[in-house]
Amino acid sequence: MNNKTDTEEDVDPTRRRVLAATGGMGLTTALSGYLSLESMREKETSEQVEKLVEDMSLAEKIGQMTQISAGEVGDDPTSFLETYQPGSLMYATTDDPSQLAEDVNELLDTAIATQAHDIPPVFGIDAVHGNNNLDGATIFPHNNGLGATWSEEYARRTAEHTASTLRATGYPWTFSPVADIQRDPRWGRFWEGFSEDPYLCAQMVAEKVRGYETSDSGHKCAGATLKHFAGYSEPRNGNDRTPALIPYRTFRNIHLPPFHAGISAGAETVMVNSGSVNGVPAHASEELLEDVLRDRLGFEGMVVSDWHDFYRMVEVHEFVTDVKDAVRLGINAGIDMYMVPAAGLETDSVTTFQQHLRELVEAGAVPTERIDDAVSNILAFKETLGLFDDPYADPETAAEVVGGARDLAYDSAADSMTLLQNDGTLPFDPDVDTVLVTGPSGDSVANMMGGWTLGWQGVGETLPPAITPLEGIREAVSDSTTVVHEPTGIDEFENEDAVHEAASDADAVVAVLGEGPYAEEHGDTDTLALPAAQQRLVRTLADAGTPYAGVFFAGRPRGNDVFDRLPAAVMGYLPGTEGGSAVADVVFGELNPGGRLPFTWPTGTGQLLNVHNAYPTPIFGSGEEPPSSSQEPLFPFGHGLSYTEFEYDDVSIAPATVPQNAASDQFTVSVKVRNTGDRPGDHVVPVFAERRHGAIPSPMREVIGYDRVSLDSGESTRVRIKASIAPLATVPGDMFSQEELQVLPGEYRITMGDAESDQILTIK
Amino acid sequence: MNNKTDTEEDVDPTRRRVLAATGGMGLTTALSGYLSLESMREKETSEQVEKLVEDMSLAEKIGQMTQISAGEVGDDPTSFLETYQPGSLMYATTDDPSQLAEDVNELLDTAIATQAHDIPPVFGIDAVHGNNNLDGATIFPHNNGLGATWSEEYARRTAEHTASTLRATGYPWTFSPVADIQRDPRWGRFWEGFSEDPYLCAQMVAEKVRGYETSDSGHKCAGATLKHFAGYSEPRNGNDRTPALIPYRTFRNIHLPPFHAGISAGAETVMVNSGSVNGVPAHASEELLEDVLRDRLGFEGMVVSDWHDFYRMVEVHEFVTDVKDAVRLGINAGIDMYMVPAAGLETDSVTTFQQHLRELVEAGAVPTERIDDAVSNILAFKETLGLFDDPYADPETAAEVVGGARDLAYDSAADSMTLLQNDGTLPFDPDVDTVLVTGPSGDSVANMMGGWTLGWQGVGETLPPAITPLEGIREAVSDSTTVVHEPTGIDEFENEDAVHEAASDADAVVAVLGEGPYAEEHGDTDTLALPAAQQRLVRTLADAGTPYAGVFFAGRPRGNDVFDRLPAAVMGYLPGTEGGSAVADVVFGELNPGGRLPFTWPTGTGQLLNVHNAYPTPIFGSGEEPPSSSQEPLFPFGHGLSYTEFEYDDVSIAPATVPQNAASDQFTVSVKVRNTGDRPGDHVVPVFAERRHGAIPSPMREVIGYDRVSLDSGESTRVRIKASIAPLATVPGDMFSQEELQVLPGEYRITMGDAESDQILTIK
Repeated sequence: MNNKTDTEEDVDPTRRRVLAATGGMGLTTALSGYLSLESMREKETSEQVEKLVEDMSLAEKIGQMTQISAGEVGDDPTSFLETYQPGSLMYATTDDPSQLAEDVNELLDTAIATQAHDIPPVFGIDAVHGNNNLDGATIFPHNNGLGATWSEEYARRTAEHTASTLRATGYPWTFSPVADIQRDPRWGRFWEGFSEDPYLCAQMVAEKVRGYETSDSGHKCAGATLKHFAGYSEPRNGNDRTPALIPYRTFRNIHLPPFHAGISAGAETVMVNSGSVNGVPAHASEELLEDVLRDRLGFEGMVVSDWHDFYRMVEVHEFVTDVKDAVRLGINAGIDMYMVPAAGLETDSVTTFQQHLRELVEAGAVPTERIDDAVSNILAFKETLGLFDDPYADPETAAEVVGGARDLAYDSAADSMTLLQNDGTLPFDPDVDTVLVTGPSGDSVANMMGGWTLGWQGVGETLPPAITPLEGIREAVSDSTTVVHEPTGIDEFENEDAVHEAASDADAVVAVLGEGPYAEEHGDTDTLALPAAQQRLVRTLADAGTPYAGVFFAGRPRGNDVFDRLPAAVMGYLPGTEGGSAVADVVFGELNPGGRLPFTWPTGTGQLLNVHNAYPTPIFGSGEEPPSSSQEPLFPFGHGLSYTEFEYDDVSIAPATVPQNAASDQFTVSVKVRNTGDRPGDHVVPVFAERRHGAIPSPMREVIGYDRVSLDSGESTRVRIKASIAPLATVPGDMFSQEELQVLPGEYRITMGDAESDQILTIK
Repeated sequence: MNNKTDTEEDVDPTRRRVLAATGGMGLTTALSGYLSLESMREKETSEQVEKLVEDMSLAEKIGQMTQISAGEVGDDPTSFLETYQPGSLMYATTDDPSQLAEDVNELLDTAIATQAHDIPPVFGIDAVHGNNNLDGATIFPHNNGLGATWSEEYARRTAEHTASTLRATGYPWTFSPVADIQRDPRWGRFWEGFSEDPYLCAQMVAEKVRGYETSDSGHKCAGATLKHFAGYSEPRNGNDRTPALIPYRTFRNIHLPPFHAGISAGAETVMVNSGSVNGVPAHASEELLEDVLRDRLGFEGMVVSDWHDFYRMVEVHEFVTDVKDAVRLGINAGIDMYMVPAAGLETDSVTTFQQHLRELVEAGAVPTERIDDAVSNILAFKETLGLFDDPYADPETAAEVVGGARDLAYDSAADSMTLLQNDGTLPFDPDVDTVLVTGPSGDSVANMMGGWTLGWQGVGETLPPAITPLEGIREAVSDSTTVVHEPTGIDEFENEDAVHEAASDADAVVAVLGEGPYAEEHGDTDTLALPAAQQRLVRTLADAGTPYAGVFFAGRPRGNDVFDRLPAAVMGYLPGTEGGSAVADVVFGELNPGGRLPFTWPTGTGQLLNVHNAYPTPIFGSGEEPPSSSQEPLFPFGHGLSYTEFEYDDVSIAPATVPQNAASDQFTVSVKVRNTGDRPGDHVVPVFAERRHGAIPSPMREVIGYDRVSLDSGESTRVRIKASIAPLATVPGDMFSQEELQVLPGEYRITMGDAESDQILTIK
């Protein structure tokens, strides 16, 4: 699974960006996300697009810049589409995939017929963990689970599958992947990110982009959207869209690398952060959307707003007095397409947006060149997707796309499972007489899925294909085993006596704990503790005396208060369709868990923000009294146990010295890993670089590479990980420096996985 | 108490800074801290200092740049002082003030005799709330209590008293005031700050500087130290000296104003932040110590390091490989004097510091000009203090300085008392039969004082003068009242039955809750809840059924978990010597509490950072579902109840329009306030400006003025507060802008105190 090799030859030949390597700063996959593309930017516009932009009327252009819900089109599509000429439609949904494809095609026909230049609208949707709006589609783990696999091939393969089903139903554009780095677990969108580590996150983002934008048929299958650009994931008090306060160095080193990686991987579109950074709404920031996105990161694709954000610039950020002024600021800052909210807002509808923009252009407040630039970006996107040749859905294929990729759903969920603690309780024997499955998520499809699953806030009445832990466990145990189920609530525990009795009567208890589904601000929390009901459930199980284990379905590190009572605990994230099978196989030992936490698990909100890649921090040594408030997290970043044991030997690094300006040069870190236990198992070997004196001012500890290997009992292998110094690049200079990234000379301590020994990498 | 009038005529004539108003940007008290002094900086060095710097040897100069503990001098002072020629000594302490003065004089004589140019060392010490290292000295409230009085005259008067006692004992330099803005209550030094609001904090800092640096005798009485420059109070995870991540706009708008105000008030010295900001240790930051401090804020005084911080640059920040390199970076960045740690550190002693610096100068790594500049700053400081004329302590006066200013200690503590909630329980009748005083702080001198009181971590065996709540209550109640005391612990509550019984038997219960003393990292906490023992105490009292009230002695908003069980609660901060009298008088109604919280009291760590002056934040209106995690604090900034009621009438503002560039122009906000209740009482009227659309990007809400009035029952008065638009200045521009401060045009909503109506101030 080591894909740290140079993949330049795999670059999609149809894409219009020029990302050729130049000089000593060759852009390889391994480097993506870390080096400035400033000198390499070179946009090429096709003749077709150029000609169209020349010919189109202002009304057509403003139409292209408009994205609206398909539901808005109403009963008279011809009239609606003729009036607004929307460049994009989204969210036409129906229960039947073939019908959906036919509906989309009908809308396409009408739209093209009413469009003077036959330009088809592009259909877009939030398909973020599978084609999650499509009834019957297989649901993959959410991003934080994929991050825990440390296998970015899952990001690519799940995206590939999603893209093919999207395309079949007429949706060649998904608003995914989230490239926001994980920073604050109180935030309701924490789980939408892959990791708190920029390198791990960047690798996942890049592969997800490659997966969506695969181009077997001569054009990209679906366009990816890097979102939410940028700084969205560090809201001041953890609540969604509260203002972020981020200094440039952190912004550049921590928040931007995943976006940069996605851009380098070819991402066609970027969606803008709804929040404000340092008091300025991202949607109004030319510094962000032009200087950073275009000049520093070299993005040449299309920039789309988030839902309703010109309105939000007025009503939330109080940045301007009316939506028209917000339109002016936003379009001038670099937004190409506006995601107009659904009906209901008088001050921010498709009518007002188009009228505002027309008046602004006519008054010279928005330059014609900006409009042409935006439209050019939009048309180029459609061209890359092959929409001018064939924008249509395929109703026949559509009928076949639901229910596929179940193996992939299982493998990705299984490889994400992270064993947090275990005193030997796990795995349970599948031959025990009686197993009790309890907790709020033992048989809940909704809780396995999280938000963005057949609904914004998660599953409603319609359920996606799913095997719950209860079903999985019934499958995993022997035929003679009785499986008892006593469900409890997320916030309620009224059957305490029944659970106590069932637990006392059982031979093994699996409590599936955690959170219900949520999205965006509805998921904000000011505590990382579990609800009191679940704390009581754990106490009840402890009291019953039967061996028991906790499994967590949650979007974040939650439940910090119950671990001292859990003999064994597995983090299952939000695992999707096959989550229950994966959990059952882990709990009964068919599967040896090999995931590692992609984030730091704090003891509580009192420790925030603690991340593994902080700047150096006081450590109270033997000579000093310890601080009264520990910074030791509950489980550190990268934590993950196994049922077997792995020993490291013969760690080496070659070459051990790399020139400062050879960011494209690779070096190999290798270690011999032996499975010394009595079970086969996967083992992730992350490679950390820790700063030493002289490498200033960079984070203490960063991931620069990783690999995941499978080893039978007694088997050993040499794990060779190719890395480069590019992830160590930082913003040099003083406190508020905005200098270009540089890899600073100095000594870096290189450690691998759980190895205690280290190697010194010298950059000079 | 309205001192918002122009006080330019009060400027100390001896100070060497030139702060004359120029053009339309006249520098008045009201503006201090908000406008750039860049164009006004003009340093004047006296002939005496110039001549000395010319004549001195490198060894003498390096000596001047060295500050060491008097305890280091040892048994052979002549030899020690001859060898190291220290420019400053600190912390010569003894139990008897006269003896201390004599000891200091003896050291001075020896030092002068061994110094080729007869330059006396300057003695410095942390006298932060009174002369708090001097046995018998009256202790004033810590800064967060002074902030709650909203009467900066207390800052000035307590500082004046402190300075006179310092000078008498030979200490003309105090490492005070802390100008760090309150941001994160987890931090162990939160209480050392005056407020979370830059304007309120700036007013207090400026007056404290004026108090210390009063110059009745032709020279400044004592030098003030603005600390810790800057950004120290927002450590990443709340723990002391963990790295701060602060964007420039926040740094400039929130963190710098109190420093700027202190500089404008004449502060002679600045002490540097021990932490790092955006990865760069403040002690190594030329951007901070030169560009910001000298150029932007116009500081012309002396810069001193904090204890041990060259060593910390190596061992904590891992910024450089050895202390010598840290010395190079620090001195070159602009540090004039190094506070050398006490013996014990082989790599960072007075010997190593002086040797490193000598070698660095000889090698050209530290320019001679920098050394001369530093020494010039140090000598100018001594000159301003009159030390060349008379550096000596006055043993006779010293004998008389202990025990003074008790009225001031009472008044400042009394005016800080803040009534958080009250269902009518308070005030208690002083004629009740039996009062129970309980809780950990009912009779604890240590807990009233906090840290930095006859010891770094607070009181040990020697106690300062103090009236505890128990003693105060005995005084406050009628002769026939029995006062019973059942103490409990901060973390222990073993006498639950006894307390329950005593409470049941009493007619009124006063529970004095909170924290024990602490300082720096020892006070870091990851929870704002009270220890379980105190939670149980409150439950016990609730259960007993007797009327009871809680009083808090704490350095921060602590106890968020007990307020739903407290019928009445008073925040007493860390009130010092007269704290118990003030508490007793509030609880029994002799005193009507009029303090207002100078910080936001959050519901817990899950809400951090929530401050009243955030950037605009989503508010979920009637049309949208509320977020799952509320941002509503437990008590907002400025909260404070009374035993009486005040009504507002006839709010006005004149003029209502101010030109954008008239930052020195004053406008008057006025309101008629009537005491409509049946008790006399103080009432603080803060004036808030709230941003309206168009004023970008500035905080939502800022204090721009305030006044505190006393009104008898039925009495009314017109409160007129002169304000200027200067506090509304922000850093204009995009996300990472570092532009100069500007007051942006637009509309600002002006509100006064608890008034519901508002006025619009238009800046254009």
